Amino acid sequence: MDVFVAEFVGTSLLLATGSGVVANVVLNQTKGNNGGWMVITTAWALGVFIGVVVAGPYSGAHLNPAVSVGLAIAGDFAWAMVPKYVLAQVLGAMFGSGIAWLVYKDHFDVTDDPEMKFAPFGTAPAIRNLPSNLFSEIIGTSVLIIVILYSTEPIIQDGADTPIGLGSLGALPVAFLVWVIGLSLGGTTGYAINPARDLGPRIMHQILPIKGKGTSDWAYSWVPILGPILGAALAAGIYLLLGAGGMV
Amino acid sequence: MDVFVAEFVGTSLLLATGSGVVANVVLNQTKGNNGGWMVITTAWALGVFIGVVVAGPYSGAHLNPAVSVGLAIAGDFAWAMVPKYVLAQVLGAMFGSGIAWLVYKDHFDVTDDPEMKFAPFGTAPAIRNLPSNLFSEIIGTSVLIIVILYSTEPIIQDGADTPIGLGSLGALPVAFLVWVIGLSLGGTTGYAINPARDLGPRIMHQILPIKGKGTSDWAYSWVPILGPILGAALAAGIYLLLGAGGMV
Amino acid sequence: MDVFVAEFVGTSLLLATGSGVVANVVLNQTKGNNGGWMVITTAWALGVFIGVVVAGPYSGAHLNPAVSVGLAIAGDFAWAMVPKYVLAQVLGAMFGSGIAWLVYKDHFDVTDDPEMKFAPFGTAPAIRNLPSNLFSEIIGTSVLIIVILYSTEPIIQDGADTPIGLGSLGALPVAFLVWVIGLSLGGTTGYAINPARDLGPRIMHQILPIKGKGTSDWAYSWVPILGPILGAALAAGIYLLLGAGGMV
Amino acid sequence: MDVFVAEFVGTSLLLATGSGVVANVVLNQTKGNNGGWMVITTAWALGVFIGVVVAGPYSGAHLNPAVSVGLAIAGDFAWAMVPKYVLAQVLGAMFGSGIAWLVYKDHFDVTDDPEMKFAPFGTAPAIRNLPSNLFSEIIGTSVLIIVILYSTEPIIQDGADTPIGLGSLGALPVAFLVWVIGLSLGGTTGYAINPARDLGPRIMHQILPIKGKGTSDWAYSWVPILGPILGAALAAGIYLLLGAGGMV
Repeated sequence: MDVFVAEFVGTSLLLATGSGVVANVVLNQTKGNNGGWMVITTAWALGVFIGVVVAGPYSGAHLNPAVSVGLAIAGDFAWAMVPKYVLAQVLGAMFGSGIAWLVYKDHFDVTDDPEMKFAPFGTAPAIRNLPSNLFSEIIGTSVLIIVILYSTEPIIQDGADTPIGLGSLGALPVAFLVWVIGLSLGGTTGYAINPARDLGPRIMHQILPIKGKGTSDWAYSWVPILGPILGAALAAGIYLLLGAGGMV
Repeated sequence: MDVFVAEFVGTSLLLATGSGVVANVVLNQTKGNNGGWMVITTAWALGVFIGVVVAGPYSGAHLNPAVSVGLAIAGDFAWAMVPKYVLAQVLGAMFGSGIAWLVYKDHFDVTDDPEMKFAPFGTAPAIRNLPSNLFSEIIGTSVLIIVILYSTEPIIQDGADTPIGLGSLGALPVAFLVWVIGLSLGGTTGYAINPARDLGPRIMHQILPIKGKGTSDWAYSWVPILGPILGAALAAGIYLLLGAGGMV
Repeated sequence: MDVFVAEFVGTSLLLATGSGVVANVVLNQTKGNNGGWMVITTAWALGVFIGVVVAGPYSGAHLNPAVSVGLAIAGDFAWAMVPKYVLAQVLGAMFGSGIAWLVYKDHFDVTDDPEMKFAPFGTAPAIRNLPSNLFSEIIGTSVLIIVILYSTEPIIQDGADTPIGLGSLGALPVAFLVWVIGLSLGGTTGYAINPARDLGPRIMHQILPIKGKGTSDWAYSWVPILGPILGAALAAGIYLLLGAGGMV
Repeated sequence: MDVFVAEFVGTSLLLATGSGVVANVVLNQTKGNNGGWMVITTAWALGVFIGVVVAGPYSGAHLNPAVSVGLAIAGDFAWAMVPKYVLAQVLGAMFGSGIAWLVYKDHFDVTDDPEMKFAPFGTAPAIRNLPSNLFSEIIGTSVLIIVILYSTEPIIQDGADTPIGLGSLGALPVAFLVWVIGLSLGGTTGYAINPARDLGPRIMHQILPIKGKGTSDWAYSWVPILGPILGAALAAGIYLLLGAGGMV
C-alpha cells in the first residue's frame, strides 16, 4: 500500500468504529444504547489499534495530523510528507464516519435530538468555554504525542528493521494510550486530540442528507484543529528539550 | 488435532462462551443479569481469543466461514478446504450453544420472554430493515476480514515457521478486533459477522426442547449468512486491489 | 521459592484480590459498591494474572487443584506432587480471603445481609439446583483446563527453557481465559472452577469471628469441589483423545 | 532524560490522568460523569502504563516512593538515590494534578460539594477508621511491591541489557497489577498505595485557588504516606525471606 492509501484506510477504520460507537451509545433503539463512557473510550482505543495494525507497516500509521506534525517537529518525520498524510487522514475520516452513518441510518431516523445526531460526527464541549476547551485539547494531545515520542514500539518505529516480530501486538500500546486519555482527560471536550477525526466527520455532517439534522457547529470547529496542533508542538518541544527518545 | 476437529473445538469454545454471555446478561436471576454491552462484547472477544489459542496451531483458527472464504478469495487458503472448515464451524457452533443452553437451563426456565430465550442463540436486528441489516453485516465483516488480511500475527499466519514464540499472546489481536467491531458496529444487528455463529445456534434453537420458546426467525436467517460472505468478498477484493499483506 | 511456598503465595494473591473485589462490590459503603459483573470478573482475571506472575517461575502457578489434577491426568504433572500443591492452594486461599476480610472489616460491620457477608468467601448458586450447579462447574472448569492444555505459554509451560523472555506478559493468556469464563459461564454458580478457591474461604467464613454472619452453606460445598475435579478430568480426557498439546 | 526528570515526567503523566479520571467521574456535567469504578480503576492502571512507557528506560519508572523504598530494602536500588526519586515523584504528582485541575476547571466551578472538589486530589477513606485505613494501605501496597519484586519485565528490570525488545508492552504488567489492586482492594481507602500520589495533589488542593473548596484533610494525610511505606517494607521483607526474584 502507498502511504496515502495506508493513512486513508487506517483513518477510515478509526472513524468507522469511532463514529460507530458514539452512534451505538447515543442513538435510540441500538443494542449499545446508553452504554456509558467505558464503551465509548474502549472502542476509540481499539479503533486506533486496528487502524495501526493495518496502516502501521506502510505509513507508520499516524492517522492524525497532530501525530504527523509532532513527529515532524521532533525531527522524526519529513515535513514534505505532512500535507499528503493530512489530506489522506481527513479524507479517511470523512469516509469512515460516512460508513458509520450508513450502518446506523435507521437509528439516526428514530432519534429526534439534533445534538445526538451530531455526536457521532464531531466533538462538542461539555461546557462551552473556548479558551478552556482549547486548553483541554492541547493537554490531551500533548499527552498523546509525548508518550508516542518516548515509546519504543519495534513495529511502529523501526518497521522492517525490527529484529523480532511482535506482529499486531506492537499496535497495542498506542491504543492503551488513547484509552487512558479518553477516560481521564476526555470528559471536557470529548477528546478530539486529532484534527482529522473532528474536521472530516464535521464536513460529512454538513453535506450528508441526515434527516432532521441541526447545526454542524462550525463556530467550535477550530478548537479541535488548533488545540491538537498546539499540543503536538508543545509535546515535541518538551521532547527536544529533554532529550531524544526511548531506548530500544 | 485434525483441522476439522480444531475448527469444531475452536468454534465450540466461541459459542459456549458467546451464547453463555448473552444468556448471562439477558436471562432472569443470573449473576450477570443486565450487565450491559461491555460485558457482552468483552466475552465475545475473549471467546475468539480462547478459540484461536486452541485451534490456531492446527487449523489457523478461522472459526468463521467468512474468514475461510475471505482468505480463499485473497489466495491465502485453498478453496477445496472451505467446505470442510465450514461444516466443522457450523457443527461446532451448534455444539457450543447447546452447552451454553444446558449451563443456563434453569435460567431459561425462569425467563418468560421468548425473545430473551432466543437471544443466546441467533442474532436479531434492533430495527428490522433487511437491506440495512444486510449492510450492517457486510460492513462489520469487511472490517473483520480486512484487518485479519493485513495483520501479521506470527502464530496465526506463519504457524510453525515463526522464529519466536509469542505463545497464546498471538491470539490477542484478533480478539481485540472482534471487541471493537462489537462495541462500535454491533449495535444494529448484534454483529453476527460469522454465518456459522448465527446459523448453528439458530438450528439448535429450532430443535432443542426449550420450554416456552418462540420463533427461530428463519425469515431473518439469510441476513447473517449472506452479509458476512459479501463482507468477506468485499474485504478480500479491497486487499487484492491495494496490494498484498503485512510485513513481518 | 519452594513450590509449596509459590503455590501458597500465588493462591493468596488470587484470593486477596478475588475476595476483595466481591467485598468491594457487595458490601455497604465501599467505593466499588454495586460495581457490576464487569468489575468482579476483571478483578478475578487479573488476580490470576498476578498470582501467575509471582508463582509461575517457581511452581508453574497452578493455583487450583483442578489445574494440578488436569495436568496430572494429561501426563504433564507428577501425581506425587498433587497433594502438596493442593494443600498449599487451600491454605493460600484461606490466607488470602482472610486478608481481604481484614481489609474490608469495617464494611462487613455495616452490612446487614448475611448472604452478602458470605459472598466474598464462598460461591453460592443463583438458582439452587445441585445437578445443574454441578454441571455448570464441570463445564466452566473443562473450558479452563482444555485451553490451558492446548495453550503454549513459553513462561508457564517451558519455564527456564524458554528461549525468549516475554516476562510477566506470559501470564496474560490464562487471565483472559478466566475472564471470559467468568463473563460467560459464571452467571449460574459464580464460577468457582477451583476447589481451593471455594473451600479455603468457606472454612475461613466458618472460623472467623465475622459479626452477624450466617451459614457457611456446607450443604453446597461439595459442588465447587467435585465439579471442578470432574471438569478437569473431562478436559484432560478430551485432550488425550484429540492428541497432544500446542505447537511452540 | 535525567532520572529526576524521568520520575517527574512519569509521575506527572500518572497524576494528570489519575486526577483527571476522578474529576471526569465525580464532577458535574462531564462526559464521564458517574462512570463508575471500572472507569476510575482502568484509567489509573493505564496512567501507570504511560508513565512507565516514558520513564522506564531512564529511571526504571518507580513513580512511587513505596516502589523506591521497597526496591532499596530488597537490595535492588541504591538508598542514596531514594531522596532524589521521592522529590521528583512528589513534584511530578503536584504538577500532574494541577494540570488535571486546569483541564476540568469549569467543571470544578459547577460542582458544589467540597468533597467532590477534593476527590481528584487526595484520597479519602470510605469509612474513617485510621487503623483500618492504614491496614488497607499497607496491604494494597504490599501486593503491589511483592508482585513487582517477583515480576520479570525485561524492559523494566533489565533496561538496556534485555536481549529482545518488547517495547512499550513491557509496561503492561505493572498496569494490570495496579488495575487489580484498585478493583479489589481499593474500595476502602481509594488505594493511594503511593505516598507521592496522595501528598503531592493534597498540597496542590491546599494551595490552588479552587473556588468553594473545603478541607485538604491533613488529619488523614499521614495514612497514605505511612501505609504504603510500611507495605513496601513488609513486601520487601517477605521477598528477602522467601528468596530472590523471578527467573528471566
